[in-house]
Amino acid sequence: MSKNDMIFKFENKPAIYSVGTVAGKKEWEGALPGIYDCHCDDDTFGMPTWEQSESEMQRLALNHALAKLAWDDGKLGLLFAGDLINQCTSSGYGLLDFDVPFLGLFGACSTLAEGIIMTAFTVNAGYVNAAAAVTSSHNCSAERQFRFPVEYGGQRTPTSQWTVTGAGAFIVGRRSLLDIEEKLIEAKNASQSQPSPLFTHVRIAEAMPGRSIECGMNDANNMGAAMAPAAGDTLLRYFTVSGTKPSDYDLIITGDLGYEGHRLTGELLAQKGIHLGNNFADCGLLIYDRERQDMHAGGSGCACSALVMGAYILPKIERGELRNVLFIGTGALMSQMSVQQGLPIPAIAHLVRLIYE
Amino acid sequence: MSKNDMIFKFENKPAIYSVGTVAGKKEWEGALPGIYDCHCDDDTFGMPTWEQSESEMQRLALNHALAKLAWDDGKLGLLFAGDLINQCTSSGYGLLDFDVPFLGLFGACSTLAEGIIMTAFTVNAGYVNAAAAVTSSHNCSAERQFRFPVEYGGQRTPTSQWTVTGAGAFIVGRRSLLDIEEKLIEAKNASQSQPSPLFTHVRIAEAMPGRSIECGMNDANNMGAAMAPAAGDTLLRYFTVSGTKPSDYDLIITGDLGYEGHRLTGELLAQKGIHLGNNFADCGLLIYDRERQDMHAGGSGCACSALVMGAYILPKIERGELRNVLFIGTGALMSQMSVQQGLPIPAIAHLVRLIYE
Repeated sequence: MSKNDMIFKFENKPAIYSVGTVAGKKEWEGALPGIYDCHCDDDTFGMPTWEQSESEMQRLALNHALAKLAWDDGKLGLLFAGDLINQCTSSGYGLLDFDVPFLGLFGACSTLAEGIIMTAFTVNAGYVNAAAAVTSSHNCSAERQFRFPVEYGGQRTPTSQWTVTGAGAFIVGRRSLLDIEEKLIEAKNASQSQPSPLFTHVRIAEAMPGRSIECGMNDANNMGAAMAPAAGDTLLRYFTVSGTKPSDYDLIITGDLGYEGHRLTGELLAQKGIHLGNNFADCGLLIYDRERQDMHAGGSGCACSALVMGAYILPKIERGELRNVLFIGTGALMSQMSVQQGLPIPAIAHLVRLIYE
Repeated sequence: MSKNDMIFKFENKPAIYSVGTVAGKKEWEGALPGIYDCHCDDDTFGMPTWEQSESEMQRLALNHALAKLAWDDGKLGLLFAGDLINQCTSSGYGLLDFDVPFLGLFGACSTLAEGIIMTAFTVNAGYVNAAAAVTSSHNCSAERQFRFPVEYGGQRTPTSQWTVTGAGAFIVGRRSLLDIEEKLIEAKNASQSQPSPLFTHVRIAEAMPGRSIECGMNDANNMGAAMAPAAGDTLLRYFTVSGTKPSDYDLIITGDLGYEGHRLTGELLAQKGIHLGNNFADCGLLIYDRERQDMHAGGSGCACSALVMGAYILPKIERGELRNVLFIGTGALMSQMSVQQGLPIPAIAHLVRLIYE
């Protein structure tokens, strides 16, 4: 254990009030069909390039999240965003319309968890009343940047994961924005038919940012194996410092480890005497239908956890079906060039504890 | 004015205790010669690729900053870092050795200011006792990624700036880490001969994160003009909200606007009735010798402000020669692909107020 193995406890328990989710066609037709706020059947979202399609998804996601609260962007004190594309241009261009102080993040596929931690840091301390965390990924922009353009039709390896096309915007606010609590409940009742309604019970209780971990993996088509040691490291430190065990949680869910990384993380922790049970899940395993859609090792990308957490897990917390959840956002901190130069792939895993209250 | 035009005031005034700076050959021989902690005459820092040279500079910079405090990395609660290279691999690989929770940033050349804001947010609120902000840029890795490999020998345009080769690590801590204050002063006295000594009087008083601003500029060889509107926007909002004027400050210094952007920012603010005087400077104008070194429009890159602020401006604050400084980190949020796709270049400018106390 290191001296800085710290769990940050948010005594004011910031609330995740509203989430906007935007999905591509495969995601809309996946294992969790039709639960997102918005989708587009040709994945272009009306834009001439895949990079601009991805930016457009971020814009749509934040607009949806704001619209549910009947807020304009003036209510947001800070905007945290990032994505996988070079120089995070999906966020840079996608969020230009919003007149909000902007702090860019890079956490690869862990960006949602990192963004939630940043919103919790700033809302819990009272710097702002509300802040948003936004992220995205697009299969076509990611594949052509990191591997091959999809038009090339390259054969994918069995361990490769499918970069999720989608975006998510999470609005986090002070626990008692009393002036809006009533409006929230009212709006919530009115929007019961919405795919993901407003939330009044989802709180951020704790966070443990990850350390970057590198264990010699250098296969860009096996991100799961590169990220598993980071997920294992953060979980091990969290259980050790908190003095808790996996069965204390209703759900322990990682961002995008896929089949390979999910299995390896379980094995790594088992070697340390910590046995993850049936409550150990992964967003990358939940988003697609393995039988019907051949996505190889599962979903990945920043949007993987944004869609599954925002449109599937958070509603379960809101309904009280899950009351104590560990969400571990996982990311591989490589570039196409670092892989070409033969460097191993470092990874990171940021943990957030979400509770029903 | 927008509803979220907020100045964050840090009532506990976090201290910048220690800075580590690493410079390339041109910087070491520039207009501020020999003031950095470490330099390398062939800019390789002993590594086989320019990207790895840049990572190595980040590692060296943080090691220098820690060594001055006689700290190990266990004293750092959080590490914020980012750079210009695709997927921020200079930070990802450069800081792997440090066993500290890592939160990646992307703010292009504004990363130092963004990092200082993040350390101030987290230290001021008491989440951690100390945190570090680290950033870097390398002329050879940046040129080949954004423009042409340097070996190509392309002719540079008159408005183009020279990406600074260097890295800086800034350690920010609680104002009264009483147990170390004495040690600090002792160490400081012992290290008077060091290029940049420890600081005991440099405090972070306020911050105003910028909004992303895009004014139609799409010339990747004129970053100054793309960033000037963002610098102007943040300064205008800051003066308006704070009710202060330029002459209230000993120094107003931007990160890397260069000659073009510096002039434009002055003109933009003059149109709004705000006249920046002789106390308006730019790190990109200070770092190189215009007569002796032909750097065209000045320096740029994340390391530009890291080197000038860390090794030149902060020591002046420490000695009480400057007591009230506005530092505005400027960044262009573009990628090579967004430029190729004909998109205009959004920019951002984050403001930090540093004081002597």
